[in-house]
Amino acid sequence: MTDRDWQQWMIATGTRARAAARALARSPTETKRAGLLAAAMAIRGAADVILAANADDLARAEAAGLSGAMLDRLRLDPARLEGVAAGVEAVAGLDDPVGSVIDRRERPNGLALTRVRVPVGVLGIIFESRPNVTADAGALAVMAGNAAILRGGSEAIGTNRAMHAALATGLGEAGLPADSVQLVETTDRAAVGAMLGAAGLIDLIIPRGGKSLVARVQAEARVPVLAHLDGLNHTYIHAAADPAKAEALAVNAKLRRTGVCGATETLLIDRAFPEPARIVAALADKGCEVRGDAQVQALDRRVVAVEETDWDTEYLDAVLSVGFVGGLDAAIAHVERHGSHHTDAIVTEDAAAAERFLAEVDSAIVMWNASTQFADGGEFGLGAEIGIATGRLHARGPVALEGLTTYKWQVRGTGQTRP
Amino acid sequence: MTDRDWQQWMIATGTRARAAARALARSPTETKRAGLLAAAMAIRGAADVILAANADDLARAEAAGLSGAMLDRLRLDPARLEGVAAGVEAVAGLDDPVGSVIDRRERPNGLALTRVRVPVGVLGIIFESRPNVTADAGALAVMAGNAAILRGGSEAIGTNRAMHAALATGLGEAGLPADSVQLVETTDRAAVGAMLGAAGLIDLIIPRGGKSLVARVQAEARVPVLAHLDGLNHTYIHAAADPAKAEALAVNAKLRRTGVCGATETLLIDRAFPEPARIVAALADKGCEVRGDAQVQALDRRVVAVEETDWDTEYLDAVLSVGFVGGLDAAIAHVERHGSHHTDAIVTEDAAAAERFLAEVDSAIVMWNASTQFADGGEFGLGAEIGIATGRLHARGPVALEGLTTYKWQVRGTGQTRP
Repeated sequence: MTDRDWQQWMIATGTRARAAARALARSPTETKRAGLLAAAMAIRGAADVILAANADDLARAEAAGLSGAMLDRLRLDPARLEGVAAGVEAVAGLDDPVGSVIDRRERPNGLALTRVRVPVGVLGIIFESRPNVTADAGALAVMAGNAAILRGGSEAIGTNRAMHAALATGLGEAGLPADSVQLVETTDRAAVGAMLGAAGLIDLIIPRGGKSLVARVQAEARVPVLAHLDGLNHTYIHAAADPAKAEALAVNAKLRRTGVCGATETLLIDRAFPEPARIVAALADKGCEVRGDAQVQALDRRVVAVEETDWDTEYLDAVLSVGFVGGLDAAIAHVERHGSHHTDAIVTEDAAAAERFLAEVDSAIVMWNASTQFADGGEFGLGAEIGIATGRLHARGPVALEGLTTYKWQVRGTGQTRP
Repeated sequence: MTDRDWQQWMIATGTRARAAARALARSPTETKRAGLLAAAMAIRGAADVILAANADDLARAEAAGLSGAMLDRLRLDPARLEGVAAGVEAVAGLDDPVGSVIDRRERPNGLALTRVRVPVGVLGIIFESRPNVTADAGALAVMAGNAAILRGGSEAIGTNRAMHAALATGLGEAGLPADSVQLVETTDRAAVGAMLGAAGLIDLIIPRGGKSLVARVQAEARVPVLAHLDGLNHTYIHAAADPAKAEALAVNAKLRRTGVCGATETLLIDRAFPEPARIVAALADKGCEVRGDAQVQALDRRVVAVEETDWDTEYLDAVLSVGFVGGLDAAIAHVERHGSHHTDAIVTEDAAAAERFLAEVDSAIVMWNASTQFADGGEFGLGAEIGIATGRLHARGPVALEGLTTYKWQVRGTGQTRP
């Protein structure tokens, strides 16, 4: 297909999505709930078909030599598929943000103004191998009243088709539009380019995948993007930190799961903190590679030398940069210089120091005496999340249903004209 | 200067702005207020200098053959300059959104979550001839805790320099950073390109000017843009409209000021509305050129033939497209097809019809029995506005201080680790 063909395809796909979005925006909460509950049942009912398609995808992927980690992301089994269905049901149980009133005011001339949440419109969701995204992201989009155009990875195309068919069946049973969630049926990468250029047809692009995908989307998109790029998170152990809490938090923040975006990648220890060796030893005992300068190396013979680039490296692995800092200001300055404005934490019993850190560190999530691994929509009580946004506009941090809405102003008058 | 020189210039300018933004984000409300009040006094104190610079700009512009309308936008006089100073004082009187709590929640594990408003960061404001924008936009940016980089039109460069010097003097007297508001001193258009590409240095670009400026910014920017493109607004006279209100609203919505973005450009009249000729006559009597099809022309001999392109034309003049529609659904469909999602109004005494219009028309502002000319931040009680946004994300409709903020999540714990 030529570029022009792709544009035509995008116009046709986007026009269908816009029509579906208009209908979804008017759909009552109960209809959206019914559609998602039916979709969950349809996914369960289609388990054999979905798992067979997944087995085919896996066989192709193995033959193509995909890595074990990628195969694991691609693989579904009955328990994982039940998790997908239960996840769709959980979204159906969330509060519907559409129609909720943000604020009201009455003007001296009698005009009554109300700001009301409405869906964003059409979401373009571009993801890689995990086939659960078809159901997760589709369900979140629909519950917030949006139509979605999903473009999954080519390695999962069979699984995605089967999952999408079940989802669409369920939504249709509740009377929601057939085009509420469309799956891009081609694996041609040009489809992604067409989506990224679809201003006026797609209102928001959400990439879910590795850094190279997100970077391509951010570089090319002519449509607003809600994305998470880096999670270069810090935990700062202040002079007045409780040593036992500091040890537990440092170990959990780094090692609970090393591959998640909320993992701590740099540990800053105040020179005045009395037990730095205890922290480093606890990490090394748990198998973490600790990198530090000569002063940190002096604490524990297992510490290896840190390079200047380590302070800017998101390891996503059992590796941690550890550095001493001369106090709160130096810690804040280090985070400002090297952080990615995702999640940063202070450990201290000094409330004034903590409040300064919470006020002055300019990250989407700032924490006091808590593990950075809590950076997650579910842990924040938002229900499922579509992702964590590291940009500054529209939505920041965990993005759930509210982040998939915008608002409009309703003005009610009695014939007022403007003088 | 080469492209690379411009990049270097942008990095230097942006780095100064980021440092100022950090300081401004921490500045208490009273400091920001004091800075703006001092700036207003400094503008008054520099009136002779500013007016002399403006006279020079005007002489150059006249010699260059600028149109009367452009010269009027460029012109300052003592009354207009006092208006600028008073506007800066008015911004100082607005509620400071920074630090306000959007919501709080406590998790079962004891984590306390708070969402708090924080400044966006660094704003890039690109505007054309009106020199008051230097003070207006600079004041709004600072009050919301943001640094600003202002790039005005070349025809106003002398006025802008004098106005900016006064503004900076005032801000400095209150101890705010010298780089809180920077004025781009060059008139080279390449500076705009450098600003549009300054991802990581500028957080938000706000173009204020005509359509060609806004279109260029939207096409080229690699930074999020908050902009107003078209105001193709509709007023729909429903079957159950009160004829006297309908007449007054149609005349005001179109003719109060024809050049503002809230002006109505298309009037839809329900076939069941009993007095369409009265509306058309009132408009024509006031000097409005009415364009319509044969049925509309049959109402009044002054009506001229409408072309298909008229339904998509923002006249910004005393010209109005008038069409009959077969009911509420047809009116909503017309607005959906031809509107620009800015401001659309229904005139009716039927509350159910009005509520459907308010719910289903997907525009930033929807109105019932009110003139579309009320689409204005001041009229909405927001104080000064930086503009009206027609995009769907972050902020919609009139954008004032709140739209120049974002939020962060503060998490307060007592040592919680994630299981």
